[in-house]
Amino acid sequence: MLSRQSTRSFSVSMSGTSQGRASAAVAQSKEKSTGKKEKLDLKPPKGTRDFYPEDMRMRNWLFGHWKDVARLHGFEEYDAPVLESEELYIRKAGEEVTQQLYNFEDKGERRVSLRPEMTPSLARMVMARGKSLTLPVKWFSIPQCWRYERMTRGRRREHYQWNMDIWGVPGIEAEAELLSAIVTFFKRVGITSQDVGIKVNSRAVLSEVLTAMGVPADKFAATCVLVDKLEKVKLDDIRGEMQELGLTDEIITKLVATLSIKDLDALEQTLGNGSKALAQLKQLMEYAEAYGFRDWLIFDASVVRGLAYYTGVVFEGFDRKGELRAICGGGRYDELLATFGGEPLPAVGFGFGDAVIAELLKDRNLLPNFDNNKEDKKMKWAFKHAERLGASHLVIIGEDEIAKGIVQVKNLAKGEQVEVEVSKVSDFIAEQLASS
Amino acid sequence: MLSRQSTRSFSVSMSGTSQGRASAAVAQSKEKSTGKKEKLDLKPPKGTRDFYPEDMRMRNWLFGHWKDVARLHGFEEYDAPVLESEELYIRKAGEEVTQQLYNFEDKGERRVSLRPEMTPSLARMVMARGKSLTLPVKWFSIPQCWRYERMTRGRRREHYQWNMDIWGVPGIEAEAELLSAIVTFFKRVGITSQDVGIKVNSRAVLSEVLTAMGVPADKFAATCVLVDKLEKVKLDDIRGEMQELGLTDEIITKLVATLSIKDLDALEQTLGNGSKALAQLKQLMEYAEAYGFRDWLIFDASVVRGLAYYTGVVFEGFDRKGELRAICGGGRYDELLATFGGEPLPAVGFGFGDAVIAELLKDRNLLPNFDNNKEDKKMKWAFKHAERLGASHLVIIGEDEIAKGIVQVKNLAKGEQVEVEVSKVSDFIAEQLASS
Repeated sequence: MLSRQSTRSFSVSMSGTSQGRASAAVAQSKEKSTGKKEKLDLKPPKGTRDFYPEDMRMRNWLFGHWKDVARLHGFEEYDAPVLESEELYIRKAGEEVTQQLYNFEDKGERRVSLRPEMTPSLARMVMARGKSLTLPVKWFSIPQCWRYERMTRGRRREHYQWNMDIWGVPGIEAEAELLSAIVTFFKRVGITSQDVGIKVNSRAVLSEVLTAMGVPADKFAATCVLVDKLEKVKLDDIRGEMQELGLTDEIITKLVATLSIKDLDALEQTLGNGSKALAQLKQLMEYAEAYGFRDWLIFDASVVRGLAYYTGVVFEGFDRKGELRAICGGGRYDELLATFGGEPLPAVGFGFGDAVIAELLKDRNLLPNFDNNKEDKKMKWAFKHAERLGASHLVIIGEDEIAKGIVQVKNLAKGEQVEVEVSKVSDFIAEQLASS
Repeated sequence: MLSRQSTRSFSVSMSGTSQGRASAAVAQSKEKSTGKKEKLDLKPPKGTRDFYPEDMRMRNWLFGHWKDVARLHGFEEYDAPVLESEELYIRKAGEEVTQQLYNFEDKGERRVSLRPEMTPSLARMVMARGKSLTLPVKWFSIPQCWRYERMTRGRRREHYQWNMDIWGVPGIEAEAELLSAIVTFFKRVGITSQDVGIKVNSRAVLSEVLTAMGVPADKFAATCVLVDKLEKVKLDDIRGEMQELGLTDEIITKLVATLSIKDLDALEQTLGNGSKALAQLKQLMEYAEAYGFRDWLIFDASVVRGLAYYTGVVFEGFDRKGELRAICGGGRYDELLATFGGEPLPAVGFGFGDAVIAELLKDRNLLPNFDNNKEDKKMKWAFKHAERLGASHLVIIGEDEIAKGIVQVKNLAKGEQVEVEVSKVSDFIAEQLASS
């Protein structure tokens, strides 16, 4: 039950690729027209990152896998402004995401916010297109998302987050397809089901329990947000807030007992075999079996996720060693458009941040070398420089070559060097790149 | 002498690909806990764009060409936060770019700004790395840049801007390489030197004239910013500001006469044949001849660009019909690090916005079709849907196919359809994609 922020992984600094910034911390002075010297801070703003070329190679590698997996699953890319109207994020359920908005008033006195998550922008875009959209909509994006904490324990204020969403599919096959994409990504980068699992639950489980005990539906979202906090805080710390929502001690006891359920047989004993939540979860496990990723899934009734708008299946990826925060998370949010005043439209999606996965890949030694900084003292400067750049080929033009009208082309990956006519160098390298 | 903003092309809305937003303008209501209904605006914030999949295909196509050209020229990609400390942009020369900052105070009472341009972030990053950087640095980026105008005549507040910069090369060959990249891009997308020219000048021309007339060096940047405004306003509208800078009527007359020079022979008569500015411009034209893009260049002494920090060669791309604002622009800025309190380091770069080029490509009918919205009434829904998605292949699984353990794979681009064993579909399509 990690909160969305910790799940969506703003906090931990990645893989040391920006360590050049250590030297950057030396403040420099600049002269202003007053004649006074002021310090220019060479670091990026607090909680943000620069991407030097070696960092960018890592980012492009990761994003490349995300994009490839999304496209292999037939998803189309979209984007929205990083700055949105604040009202898009105003929800009353007490979520961390809405409490930590990076919001401000612009010069036109409009309340705006750097986006904390992509889903509300996506919902706005889907709603704007309305009936003209061909369903199902299967869209992905890799937005940069922002938050502002006053107490910033060295935590990041921005991260990039892979989002995939399906609109217009009420059935559980949409969840199965998203989980398939997540697993496909993990496999591509060398992560196995021994490294990572995906906890699965449905908010319908809690909904059925609470409804049976007479809790009104309009208390459900806020209850889920509170339950999500149990990962970090003790029950007694939030018991008061639960009581304010009208949950009696009897209900709270039943709730906590339900959260502890870890297998579907036990769930059936609690909900009865007519439970729709149970049927959906069983169906999802069957689809996972058919897809071939059943071994990645674990039913866990304590997973509810921290966003108010989830209504059905929820899930989160976690490392089985238990050392990291959640790797990714998502769920079904069939009512989000209704909260914006539109017609409800079935929807399910996930967010997958760039920080925790980078830690995990580094820890498992699964990251390629993006530095290209090896030092071979026998190589000349040109070779070293080509390596530092991560160049694929080095073209060598000496006096002999000029006399003959040829150049030497060294394929740096293969170590092969061949003579090529000057007029054919471009085509030759293009061919090699196409076939590599 | 277009200003940077108009040059870097924030203003005109592109190619109608976001017209879905027309229907988006229908405001919807949402219920708040007070019971009152409020309108949720379905449009993105004023002056910003959503990217629906068809818009994103256009963006990816354009960015793909930019990235390919940059990499072909050996440039490495970098990035920096879209939010920077405001002080990075505080310059006193009266530039439009610093007058239109999208700036605000964050919750920690820091003055910050959405970046109006990338160069100051790049300079900060270069300065932070200091001596550990291997020179020359050849880096590119495609940042989203922001501005805020109070009087917004329907102009955009954000655009994407291709940036390429070279650091550590004092010689004019750096300018030649950047111009080569720009021309390479134009050629790749089908634009010729009949469509587009690149005006070239050097601020050293004005500097030599002003220095000879006794104008102090510290008035130079502000003078250039004023001169740049002559594209939009009459001389008499800024004569007062020029006089405030200490420029006498005699100097202003000489300045204006210099700006009217359109060929290097006339320039030689003004500056004398010992002029360094003249020698550099001649050298640049020789390099352009050797590269094979001399026909794209036009010397024009009136081009100074609107950014305060340029010191040497400046250039801007323009459509020869004269219908559009400048397409791209750049120049040498050898003193920027010094203004930040660092050691000077030779640098040259350009910015190339996504709006004017889109207009030009549309006008010349050079844009691929990104809509995939043709309606062939005889095709089944699956075919239409695949087309709408811009899919490359359609896999058809019917009862006959299931019985035989095969599927039909239709290559939608080529119109070819073949039978493939189920277990080989993935490899088959991957091969076709690799060879297309």
